Amino acid sequence: MKEYTTEYIDHISELIDSGSTDAMQQEIADLHPADIATLISHLDRHEIDTVYRLLDTETAADVLVELDEDLRDKLLSSMSTEDIAKQVIDHLDTDDAVDIIQDLDEEDQHEVLSHLHDATQAGNIIDLLKYDEDTAGGIMSTEMIIVNENWSMPQCVKEMRRQAEDLEEVFYVYVVDNDNKLCGVFPLRKMITHPSVSKIKHVMDPEPMSIRADTPVEDVTLQFEKYDLVAMPVVDSIGRLVGQITVDDVMDEARESSERDYQLASGLSGDVTTNAGFFAQTRVRLPWLLIGMLGGLANSMILSRFEAGFAVNPTMALFIPLIGGTGGNVGIQSSAIIVQGLANGSLDAATTWQQIIKELGVGLINASIISLLVFVYNMLTLGISQVTTIAVSLSLFAVVVFASVFGTFVPLTLEKLKIDPALATGPFISITNDIIGMVIYMVISSTLIAQFSSMA
Amino acid sequence: MKEYTTEYIDHISELIDSGSTDAMQQEIADLHPADIATLISHLDRHEIDTVYRLLDTETAADVLVELDEDLRDKLLSSMSTEDIAKQVIDHLDTDDAVDIIQDLDEEDQHEVLSHLHDATQAGNIIDLLKYDEDTAGGIMSTEMIIVNENWSMPQCVKEMRRQAEDLEEVFYVYVVDNDNKLCGVFPLRKMITHPSVSKIKHVMDPEPMSIRADTPVEDVTLQFEKYDLVAMPVVDSIGRLVGQITVDDVMDEARESSERDYQLASGLSGDVTTNAGFFAQTRVRLPWLLIGMLGGLANSMILSRFEAGFAVNPTMALFIPLIGGTGGNVGIQSSAIIVQGLANGSLDAATTWQQIIKELGVGLINASIISLLVFVYNMLTLGISQVTTIAVSLSLFAVVVFASVFGTFVPLTLEKLKIDPALATGPFISITNDIIGMVIYMVISSTLIAQFSSMA
Repeated sequence: MKEYTTEYIDHISELIDSGSTDAMQQEIADLHPADIATLISHLDRHEIDTVYRLLDTETAADVLVELDEDLRDKLLSSMSTEDIAKQVIDHLDTDDAVDIIQDLDEEDQHEVLSHLHDATQAGNIIDLLKYDEDTAGGIMSTEMIIVNENWSMPQCVKEMRRQAEDLEEVFYVYVVDNDNKLCGVFPLRKMITHPSVSKIKHVMDPEPMSIRADTPVEDVTLQFEKYDLVAMPVVDSIGRLVGQITVDDVMDEARESSERDYQLASGLSGDVTTNAGFFAQTRVRLPWLLIGMLGGLANSMILSRFEAGFAVNPTMALFIPLIGGTGGNVGIQSSAIIVQGLANGSLDAATTWQQIIKELGVGLINASIISLLVFVYNMLTLGISQVTTIAVSLSLFAVVVFASVFGTFVPLTLEKLKIDPALATGPFISITNDIIGMVIYMVISSTLIAQFSSMA
Repeated sequence: MKEYTTEYIDHISELIDSGSTDAMQQEIADLHPADIATLISHLDRHEIDTVYRLLDTETAADVLVELDEDLRDKLLSSMSTEDIAKQVIDHLDTDDAVDIIQDLDEEDQHEVLSHLHDATQAGNIIDLLKYDEDTAGGIMSTEMIIVNENWSMPQCVKEMRRQAEDLEEVFYVYVVDNDNKLCGVFPLRKMITHPSVSKIKHVMDPEPMSIRADTPVEDVTLQFEKYDLVAMPVVDSIGRLVGQITVDDVMDEARESSERDYQLASGLSGDVTTNAGFFAQTRVRLPWLLIGMLGGLANSMILSRFEAGFAVNPTMALFIPLIGGTGGNVGIQSSAIIVQGLANGSLDAATTWQQIIKELGVGLINASIISLLVFVYNMLTLGISQVTTIAVSLSLFAVVVFASVFGTFVPLTLEKLKIDPALATGPFISITNDIIGMVIYMVISSTLIAQFSSMA
């Protein structure tokens, strides 16, 4: 894997600026399209155009697929729909073609499709465009080898040879009946271990694992992980073979989905790389910061009800960060465990009550330990009144138990409502628990102070 | 994929308790080992033993590989080393065998190895045990098809057939020279498209992509993702073929590494599932909660220096959650962007200064917006003094800028020191920024109050 150090990028820039086309061509001749894409993303627009012109059409199309969406859109917007059809789409597998066409506006989509000279490919792309992006149908491709169950092996091999011509990788050959229903899989390994002249239906693996086109992408990912798959055939509702999903697409989806969960947990409202500009960075960061700000102002309103209390008993103020922070930390832990369990399939939303009761137990243990430790600390520290000591530990106890249950309940409820449970992590949970923590703290403090002063 | 509903689990438990061995055997006959593992993880120990006894040795070994580490260790600890060798290890690929043997103590490891009757397998396992778990060598297996470059294709096919007998999946055949150095790859697809009788060196793909055994696992993952690989040969420092990594192992590693990042960002100090017991849950959760508690107590000490100030000017207390929380939110965002960039390879730690300067820009924009909005809010709110209004907005500005830079600097520095940068996310960042926020707020407030009172 090439390293893109600042020196290397500078070297390339120099080559381009000095117009050394030959040297540049040599530099990129042996690079994988994915490496050229990485290189390009470090160059400025003028340099990109120069490099892009040096590539043959096939490679240029592959590089485009590997680029970041932003940069890709910029390059595509400077091309005519005819060029997009003939120089890009024509050279791509249908799943990559669909990814690119999907980003165009509707009019351009039609124009690009009408410029394709391969009617079968155009038809396949139109079929694929109908599927929801987040389902098996949305990530499958139609490039695969298909043979009929009634053919003899020699007949199949001839057919495989013809179909394999255009394919980069082949791992399985799919076997269908006369109605195009999937009835078996023939792993290429059997070409070696079970050479045969009989009909393929006698040597194929019958009852192959397959997936319905409307299966959500997360379930597809879990199945690939669980069963260690490399490729899986996709069927429609009556079992007809409509496409194939390969493991590289699944890995991309898995990476994207775990990055999304991580971003949500970190208060980022979208995908942003360190290369993104100031505006793009601010756009994904400001929303949660503003919600946090509103939460902070709400807290100031809650605390203002107790302003007179701070004047009389200023030590109360010292424990505001402790109580708010602890509630946030506990809530984030609870929600993270739930979100992760739902993401890796080890948890089922149907067991909500079991989870909440269990979490209540864990919450009680943590709450007891923390409030006890703080109680001892406050007892030993000079200048902290008895009321404050008791109020702080009682509040901590209540906040930890509340945050544990709340952090478990909210993501499980979102999952049941078919809303992404990862929305209920990070800032949402910490802001909510901060506010609830302040309410609990103020209510307990006022009650205790009233109690103590009536006793005095 | 089977759904493990409470009803289904109850149904299985009933079958076991009623001793219906036949019905039970029928129930699990068609299940994939991964499904049996999932099923087992929902049962109690006595039921597990019953199910386990119904499995044939081969399946039982595969189920063991798929189990959670905790449960696997429990089952293994009730087996003799001879049984582990003959009933488990003997039926596994070397990479899975190593995973299991690695968890045993050293004495048991030797005993298990000495009980293996296949000396080649034992030798391979001993070789694999030498590699660091976090490198390519630590996750590769030695099961693959190897042919010599000087053999003719028919000779190779004969050899492939012999070697493929024991293998579940084959995608590539590796070609080595007389020194066992990797010199080519023969994709099985070519069996169909390029049937030939010449030497394999004339039909293989020369200069294949390969990976050194000491490459860190994260780099292996990035290469599989970048180049859409299904399998990759592993070589030693002089290019000799030592093993193969397949995509299913890489996916497992990728899932684990993203889960680890997510856990660290959520203040969990280890892997914990919703199925874990109270003690296991508390063990991974309490450390960060206690650190958070210490941070909160440190905050109370800082604020206590200003206790007299709260008595005179109690509105100051109202904005403690706003300032601490905002610092935490900003810092978590910054560190998350860096950690994610490092994890997916889009960011290089060598560009630290560029990143910090850029982040300073983003921080200044966010700081200006937030402190201005809060300034306007406080101006319009009754009962908030001019000093407080100015102190709060100045502090917010300083905290946001500081947290932005700090959240960028710390993970990049850890990466340079070869410490996992994900340690510097979540609670670490929010607690640190909370404390720094309080210091900034108290210093600015005291200075301003002194200023205003000297003017009065």
